[in-house]
Amino acid sequence: MQLKITNGTIVTPFESFKADIGIENSKIAAIGDLSTLSAEKTLDARGMYVFPGIIDVHTHFETMGGGGVKTADNFFTGTRAAALGGVTTIIDFTKQEKGEFVKEAVHRRYLQAMDQVCIDFGLHSLFTDLSQDSFNAIPDVVMDGYSTLKLFTTYKKTGFLVEDGELLETIRKAHASKGMVILHAENDYLCEYFTEKNIAEGKLAPEYHPLSRPNIAEAEAVSKAALFAGYTNSLLYIVHLSTSEGAEIIRQARSRGVPIMAETCPQYLVLNDDKYLETNGHYHIATPPLRKKTDQDKLWEGIQEGSISVVSTDHCSFTTAQKDKGKESFKDVPPGIPGTETLLPLMHHFGVNHNRISLNKLVEVLCHNPAKIFGMYPNKGTLTVGTDADIVIFDPNKKVRLGTDTLHMGSDYSPYEGIEVQGYPSTTILRGNIIVENGQFLGEKGFGQFIRRKQPQYV
Amino acid sequence: MQLKITNGTIVTPFESFKADIGIENSKIAAIGDLSTLSAEKTLDARGMYVFPGIIDVHTHFETMGGGGVKTADNFFTGTRAAALGGVTTIIDFTKQEKGEFVKEAVHRRYLQAMDQVCIDFGLHSLFTDLSQDSFNAIPDVVMDGYSTLKLFTTYKKTGFLVEDGELLETIRKAHASKGMVILHAENDYLCEYFTEKNIAEGKLAPEYHPLSRPNIAEAEAVSKAALFAGYTNSLLYIVHLSTSEGAEIIRQARSRGVPIMAETCPQYLVLNDDKYLETNGHYHIATPPLRKKTDQDKLWEGIQEGSISVVSTDHCSFTTAQKDKGKESFKDVPPGIPGTETLLPLMHHFGVNHNRISLNKLVEVLCHNPAKIFGMYPNKGTLTVGTDADIVIFDPNKKVRLGTDTLHMGSDYSPYEGIEVQGYPSTTILRGNIIVENGQFLGEKGFGQFIRRKQPQYV
Amino acid sequence: MQLKITNGTIVTPFESFKADIGIENSKIAAIGDLSTLSAEKTLDARGMYVFPGIIDVHTHFETMGGGGVKTADNFFTGTRAAALGGVTTIIDFTKQEKGEFVKEAVHRRYLQAMDQVCIDFGLHSLFTDLSQDSFNAIPDVVMDGYSTLKLFTTYKKTGFLVEDGELLETIRKAHASKGMVILHAENDYLCEYFTEKNIAEGKLAPEYHPLSRPNIAEAEAVSKAALFAGYTNSLLYIVHLSTSEGAEIIRQARSRGVPIMAETCPQYLVLNDDKYLETNGHYHIATPPLRKKTDQDKLWEGIQEGSISVVSTDHCSFTTAQKDKGKESFKDVPPGIPGTETLLPLMHHFGVNHNRISLNKLVEVLCHNPAKIFGMYPNKGTLTVGTDADIVIFDPNKKVRLGTDTLHMGSDYSPYEGIEVQGYPSTTILRGNIIVENGQFLGEKGFGQFIRRKQPQYV
Amino acid sequence: MQLKITNGTIVTPFESFKADIGIENSKIAAIGDLSTLSAEKTLDARGMYVFPGIIDVHTHFETMGGGGVKTADNFFTGTRAAALGGVTTIIDFTKQEKGEFVKEAVHRRYLQAMDQVCIDFGLHSLFTDLSQDSFNAIPDVVMDGYSTLKLFTTYKKTGFLVEDGELLETIRKAHASKGMVILHAENDYLCEYFTEKNIAEGKLAPEYHPLSRPNIAEAEAVSKAALFAGYTNSLLYIVHLSTSEGAEIIRQARSRGVPIMAETCPQYLVLNDDKYLETNGHYHIATPPLRKKTDQDKLWEGIQEGSISVVSTDHCSFTTAQKDKGKESFKDVPPGIPGTETLLPLMHHFGVNHNRISLNKLVEVLCHNPAKIFGMYPNKGTLTVGTDADIVIFDPNKKVRLGTDTLHMGSDYSPYEGIEVQGYPSTTILRGNIIVENGQFLGEKGFGQFIRRKQPQYV
Repeated sequence: MQLKITNGTIVTPFESFKADIGIENSKIAAIGDLSTLSAEKTLDARGMYVFPGIIDVHTHFETMGGGGVKTADNFFTGTRAAALGGVTTIIDFTKQEKGEFVKEAVHRRYLQAMDQVCIDFGLHSLFTDLSQDSFNAIPDVVMDGYSTLKLFTTYKKTGFLVEDGELLETIRKAHASKGMVILHAENDYLCEYFTEKNIAEGKLAPEYHPLSRPNIAEAEAVSKAALFAGYTNSLLYIVHLSTSEGAEIIRQARSRGVPIMAETCPQYLVLNDDKYLETNGHYHIATPPLRKKTDQDKLWEGIQEGSISVVSTDHCSFTTAQKDKGKESFKDVPPGIPGTETLLPLMHHFGVNHNRISLNKLVEVLCHNPAKIFGMYPNKGTLTVGTDADIVIFDPNKKVRLGTDTLHMGSDYSPYEGIEVQGYPSTTILRGNIIVENGQFLGEKGFGQFIRRKQPQYV
Repeated sequence: MQLKITNGTIVTPFESFKADIGIENSKIAAIGDLSTLSAEKTLDARGMYVFPGIIDVHTHFETMGGGGVKTADNFFTGTRAAALGGVTTIIDFTKQEKGEFVKEAVHRRYLQAMDQVCIDFGLHSLFTDLSQDSFNAIPDVVMDGYSTLKLFTTYKKTGFLVEDGELLETIRKAHASKGMVILHAENDYLCEYFTEKNIAEGKLAPEYHPLSRPNIAEAEAVSKAALFAGYTNSLLYIVHLSTSEGAEIIRQARSRGVPIMAETCPQYLVLNDDKYLETNGHYHIATPPLRKKTDQDKLWEGIQEGSISVVSTDHCSFTTAQKDKGKESFKDVPPGIPGTETLLPLMHHFGVNHNRISLNKLVEVLCHNPAKIFGMYPNKGTLTVGTDADIVIFDPNKKVRLGTDTLHMGSDYSPYEGIEVQGYPSTTILRGNIIVENGQFLGEKGFGQFIRRKQPQYV
Repeated sequence: MQLKITNGTIVTPFESFKADIGIENSKIAAIGDLSTLSAEKTLDARGMYVFPGIIDVHTHFETMGGGGVKTADNFFTGTRAAALGGVTTIIDFTKQEKGEFVKEAVHRRYLQAMDQVCIDFGLHSLFTDLSQDSFNAIPDVVMDGYSTLKLFTTYKKTGFLVEDGELLETIRKAHASKGMVILHAENDYLCEYFTEKNIAEGKLAPEYHPLSRPNIAEAEAVSKAALFAGYTNSLLYIVHLSTSEGAEIIRQARSRGVPIMAETCPQYLVLNDDKYLETNGHYHIATPPLRKKTDQDKLWEGIQEGSISVVSTDHCSFTTAQKDKGKESFKDVPPGIPGTETLLPLMHHFGVNHNRISLNKLVEVLCHNPAKIFGMYPNKGTLTVGTDADIVIFDPNKKVRLGTDTLHMGSDYSPYEGIEVQGYPSTTILRGNIIVENGQFLGEKGFGQFIRRKQPQYV
Repeated sequence: MQLKITNGTIVTPFESFKADIGIENSKIAAIGDLSTLSAEKTLDARGMYVFPGIIDVHTHFETMGGGGVKTADNFFTGTRAAALGGVTTIIDFTKQEKGEFVKEAVHRRYLQAMDQVCIDFGLHSLFTDLSQDSFNAIPDVVMDGYSTLKLFTTYKKTGFLVEDGELLETIRKAHASKGMVILHAENDYLCEYFTEKNIAEGKLAPEYHPLSRPNIAEAEAVSKAALFAGYTNSLLYIVHLSTSEGAEIIRQARSRGVPIMAETCPQYLVLNDDKYLETNGHYHIATPPLRKKTDQDKLWEGIQEGSISVVSTDHCSFTTAQKDKGKESFKDVPPGIPGTETLLPLMHHFGVNHNRISLNKLVEVLCHNPAKIFGMYPNKGTLTVGTDADIVIFDPNKKVRLGTDTLHMGSDYSPYEGIEVQGYPSTTILRGNIIVENGQFLGEKGFGQFIRRKQPQYV
C-alpha cells in the first residue's frame, strides 16, 4: 500500500465504524483491519473522524462581480483555502458573454482554471444567451462534462435574467440531454420594485437590502421553478435557498413527486439579518440576503428531513475596500460572502455539535448528495473500495477561533469573525496525495483535475 | 301588489319549491300561496322555473379590441341581448389609458354606459398604469363602487401587463381598501415565446392559437396569483379559467386556506380546440384559447365541488368581417367570442340536462355567488323578501336551435350555431319591470342603473 | 290566513331577512310583506328572531337507565319542557329486549309515546339482538319510519354491545334498505379495562369517570366506524361525539369521501371535567363523560367548519336521589344529564353570543341538518312556503338564569344551575298551533304526531 | 486472514461494488482489493453477488399448530433448510401458556432451541396472559433480549386474543421498556362472524377461507393498531401484512408520523387466492389467507416506496397428511405454509428479475431493516468492517426448479412446486464459518447462538 490511514472512525451517510483505509494508485484499495498490511506511509487517525473529501458545488473564483470588481480569490488562492477547509472538489461557473457561442465560453473558463487549481474541479455552464445556436449546443455542452446549466430569474439589468419561455424550454432540453438546469431563483420584478421603492425613499442602509429582496421574491421564483419542473418532468436544482417559504414549497413539490432539489449555504443557516445592523453591516450583503431566525430554523429542518439535499457556499469573496464602494448605499455593494474554507467546520459545529444533524447527515449533504446530484458519484463523495481516495481527517476536539488570522481566503474580513468552533479538518487527501497535513498546505498549483461530469441524479 | 308570479317552481341555491312571488316597489314583497292577494298584473309560471335574474360579471361591450377594431355590441345592443337571455345585471370594464388619472377613466366609462344600458350594470376598474397617483386613488375608486380592479399578467406589448411588484402591492392595497383584484392570468413571457416560435415556423393556422398560449402559461400565472393572495392574505379572483392545471391549483390553494376564487365561461365548458380545425376556425379565437376535453371535465368538476365559484361569459363580440382580418394568421384575429345571451341556456342544457350540476348549483354560480363576490348581495342574486325583484321565468321544455337567427347579439355568427338546447328563458323582470315577456324585448335604453358595488365577499 | 307572524327577522341556514310569515292549514303559506293580508291572529315579532322549530334528535324519555332506575321525564313532561325550550320535534328510542322480535319492540314504544307527547316525534329503532329474524326485518322497520337503527359498541355487560361482524353487516344492510345506523361509539374493552383498574385501585370519585372512559375509547370506535362506513360505502351517524380525537377522525374521513356524520351535545361544548371536582360532581356523570377544554374547542371548530352536522341533547334526566345511588362510586351513578329544554338557549348564548357560530349556523345544526339527516326534510327544519309551520319566536335580549326554578324538566337539579344566558325562546308554534306563548305552555298531551321518517340524507 | 471472498460484487442497501472481503475472528476484517493479503482459505465469487446473511424474523419451528398438530420442521431441520436458502439468522417465538409466568415460558423455549439450531436465532416473547405479574415482567423480558412481544387480535377461541385495554397498555409499556409489540392484526369478531356464516351455509371448500377472513378484518385491526401506536407514541410492528387496505393504512399513518412498521411475506407477493381453486387447494391455507392480484401489487408498491419495511416468511410447515385433516372443511386445516428456504430465491426472482425492486432494496428488506428493527444491528444485517461475517454468496444465473426434490424443509409439498427461479444462494457463511458451500450443508446442530436483542429501531 502507498498510504494507510489507521484507527480512525470512518463516517458515511449510513454508518460510522472504526477501520483502517488502504490507498493504492490514488484509489481506496481496502477498508478494514489492515494492521498486517505494510504501507509506505501511515497516518494515525486515532480519535479522528475520517470523512470523504468535502465537495463545494457552488464557488465563484476569479470572477467579475457586481459593479465591475473582481473577486478577491482566484482559482489558486480559492482552492488552496478550500483544501485547508477539507474541500477536495469544487464546482465553479463558466460565463457566456452575450452573443458568445457557449462552447467558446466554457472552454475559455476551463483554460483559465486548469493550471491554477490545487484541487479537483467541475464547471457549471452559465447561459446568458439562449439564441438558437446556444440552445442547440446544450447536448454538446452536457456531453463535455459541463452538465449543469446555470440560469437566473433575476439580474435583468445586467443581462442574466432568462425569460419564462426560454427558462421552461431550457429546463426541458437540459433534462432531455441528460443534463440539468440549476437556478438562481429570485423574482427580478419584485426585487426591482422594492429596491427602487427603498432607494426612492432614501432607505439606503444595509438593513434595507433584505427588504429590497423580500422572501416572497424567492418564494415566487421557487414556486414557478417547481411548476416548470413538474410540467416538463425534468430534474431541477435550486441554488442558495434562503427562505422558509422556499423550503416549504420545495418540500411540498417533492412530496407530490416533482423532481426538484435544493441547496442552502452556511450563511443562511448560521447568520441572520441582525448582521446588517452591525458596524460594517454592508460586508454581509449577498444575494439572496441574510434572513430571519425563523428562516434558519426551517432550513435546518429541511436538511434534517431531506428536502434540502446539499449545503454549498456560494463563495464570492471581496475585500473590505471593494465592499466599501457601497458604504453609502446597499445597492452599490458588490454582493457576495467568502465561505469555502469554513464550510465543513461551520456545518459540523452548528449542525452536529448543536444537535441539529447527525454526523452521517453531515457527510450526506457535504459529500454524498453533491457527488450524486452533480454526476461525480461514486468516484467522489463516498468512502468505498475502488473510488478516488479523497479523504479528510477531522479532529472533533480541535477548537479554532474563526477570523482572518486563522483563515486563508482572499477577503480581509470574515463574516464569522470571532466565532469559536469545535472540530476542524486536520489533513486533506486528494486522490491519495496528502495536500494538507496537520493544517499545513502541501499541495501545488495545477494539481487539480477537471471532472467531466456525468448525468445528474435525483436524491 | 303590482305584480304577481304564480305557480312557478322557485329555485334558490339551497331549495326548490312551489310558491307565488309578489312584487311591490321594485322589491320582492312576498313569497308563498298568494292566491288571496290581488295584483295589478299576474304572470302564470306553471311548469316554469323561477330563477333570480342572471348576473354576467364579465362583458366587453363597446370596447376597442385587438388590432383596433371595435366590438360588434355596444351597451344598448349588448344589454338588450343579455336581457333576452335572462341576464338582469352585467359588469363591464372601464379602461385607464396610460397616463390617465384612473378616476377620470372610470367616470368616462360610466357616462358612456349610463344612457345606453337596458339592464343594471357595474364596472370593474381596469388599471393599466399604477403610478403613485393611481395607486393612491384605489380606496376612492373602490368607495365609488368600482370595487374590483382588473389587472393583467399578459398583453405586455399593448400595455396591459402589470409587473409582479405592482401586482403584489395592488392585490394587497385593493384588499386593504375593501376592494379586490380580478386577474387575467396568463404568463405573457410564455405566450410570447410560443407565439413567436410558431410564427417563425410559419404555423399560422387557428389550431396554433392554443399551442401559442399553452396550459402552462395559465397554470403559471394562476399559481403566482395564489401565492400572492396567500402571502398578502388578500381576496383575489381569477377570470376566465380555462385549464385543468389552473383548476387544480385553485382547488389546492383554497383547501390550504388561500382566499382565491375563480370563474370560468361556457366556451371552456362546452367547446374545445377541435373548433379550430373547422372551416372558419378563426372565428373561435379568444384568449385564453379553447382547450381539450380533459380540461372541460376538470372545469365541470371544479364547479360541482365548489372550487370554481362563478360562470360568466367574457362576452366580446366581433363580426366575421372583423375576424377575417386574421384569416391568414391566428395572430391577427381580434380575440373574443359573443356569449351573454346564451349563458343561461347553455349552462342549463349542458350542466343540468347533462347531469353535471343541479338546478340549485346553476343558480349558485350564475346568481348567488356573482352577487356575493361582487358586492351586490343581497339586493341581487337571490329570491328573498325585500330584495330587488330581478327574476327570470325559465321554460325547461322549450327547445331552441342556437344561431344568428335566434340570437340578438352583434356578431353575424355564433360559436354555438346549430346546437339545440332544451330549456330557455321566457320572461325577464328587472326591479319589478317586465323587460322581456315571452321572448319579446319590452325594455328601454337607459333603464339600467349603475350599481355602486360594496365589499367583495369570499365564497 | 289563520295566523300571521309579523315584523320578525327570519333566520334560515343561508340568510336572515325581515319579513312576515302567513300560516294556513298548519303550513307556511306565505313569506313577505303581508301587511295587506288579514289574519285571524297576529303575533308581533318585532325585535325577535324567527327560527324553524328546533329538532332534538336524541332524547331518552320514560326509559330504564343504568341500575334499573327510570328516567325522571316521561313523554309528557319531557316534551312539554322541550316545547318550552323551542323544540317542536324530538326523536327518541325504541328498545328491543333480547329475543324480542324487533317489530314488536318498535310498536310497543310507539304506543307508549303516542298519547303522551305534546310535540311531534320520531323513534330510532334500537337493536340489541341481531338474530337472523331481526336482521331480515330491517327493511320493514325502515319502511315503517323507524329508519335509523341505533347500535352500540359498548355496554357489553348489559347486552347492548354489537360485535364487529354484526356491526359491519348491519351498517351495510341498513343503508341498502334506505335506512342508516346511528352509533354510540365507545370501545367497550378499553372502557372496561380502565374502569376495572380504577375500581381495583379504589379510585371511585366522580373524577375517575372520564379516566375510565378515556378519549382513546371514543377515538377507536369512531375510527372503526369510519372504516366500516367507507368499506361498505354506507351512511353512518355517530351520536354524542365528545373528543377532539373523534372530531379529527370524522373530519379526515369526510374529506376522503367517507359518508359519515356526527352530532355533539351542549354538555360537551359548555361543560368540562372540572364539574367532577365540584360538590355533587356525580350529578354530571354521563357517557361519554365531560371532557377537557381542548376537546370543547375542537368540537366548536368541527361545528363551525361543517364536519359536525348536528347538536342534540342526549337528554336523560334523573333526580338527585337517583344520582345519589352512586355517591360512593362513579360506577353506580345512573349516567345521563337533562338538556332538551336548554338546547336552544345554550347554543345561542355560548355559540352565537360568544362568536363561535353565526345565527345561520345555529339554525343549520339545530333544524336544517337534523331534518335532512333524519328524513324529515323539507316538512321539518326549514322556513319555506309549503312546509310545516313549526316555528320558534326567539327574544335575543331576554336574560334567563338557568336553574330548577326557571326550567321544567323532571330533574331536581340542573347541570347549568346559575348560568345566565341572554336570548330565550318566547313562543313555540307546532304545525300552526301556538303551543307556547310568551313562555306559557298552551299545548296538550297527545297533540304530537308520529313522523314516519324517510331516507336519511348525507349533509 | 482466515477467510477471503474475492472478486464478488458486494451489495448493500446503498451501493453495489466489486471488492474482496477478508474475515478474521468471525468478523469482517477488511473490504477492498485484498490481493496482497494471504488467507487460509479463499472463496472465488467472480460473477456472484455477495449479500449480508439473510434474516428471517418470522418462523414457527417445533410448534403446536391449529388442531393440535406439530409443525413438520423442528429447530434442526428448519434452520438447516434456512441455511441452505442463505438465511443466517431467524427469529422464532416463545409461547406463554395461560397462567404460566412469562419468564419461565421464554426460558423453556430458549432451552428447547439452543442445542438444535444450525444458525443464529432470536426469540419473540409471545404473551397470552397479561396478568399483573406478566405485565410487570415486561422490562425483564426485554432486557433478557426477547425485546419484541408478540400479541394477537385474533384467535380468541384458542386463547391468543388480547383485548383492547391490555393491547393498548402493553404497546405503551413495551415501548417504555425499550421493547416493542409485534402484532398479528386480524379482527377476530369479523373473522368469526364470516367463518360461522360460511360454515352454516355449508361453504367448506378452501376458497371460502379468504372469504371467512376478509380484507376488512385485517384493515380494521391494522387501523386500530396505528391509532394505538400514534396515541401512545410507541413503536409498533405489524406481522404478515396481506391486504392492499392494510398497506394503505400503514402508508398514511407513517406519513402522519405514527411510528408503525410492517412486514409482508413471499406468499402474499407471489401467490394469490387462485391457489384455493387448485386440487389440494387446502395445502395453501394460512392466516391471513392468500389474497387477490390487486393486493399483491399494492404490497410490492409498499416495499418499493418504503412503507413496508421487511419481508419474512411466517414459516409454518405441515405435511400433506396433517393438512388433509381439513380435506372436508377449510376450518379444520392447520394453517401455515413453509418458506424460510425459499425466501431469498423468490424475492430475488419475482422482485429483482421482474423489475419490482432493486438489488439494494432486496438487501434492505431481507437484511438491513430486519437487523435494525429487531435490535441486532450492526452486528447483523450489513457488510461493514467489524461486524459479524454473516454472508451469502449468490449466483444470479443459477436456475432452480422449486419443489420437494430441490428443497429441504419438513413439508412433503411446496406451495411453489414447479416454479423455476433464476438466481440461487450458493454458499452461506455464519460468523466466518462456511455452513453451506456450493449448495452442500456443512453446518452442525447447536452451532447457532442466541442473540440477546437490543432496543428496536424505527426504519
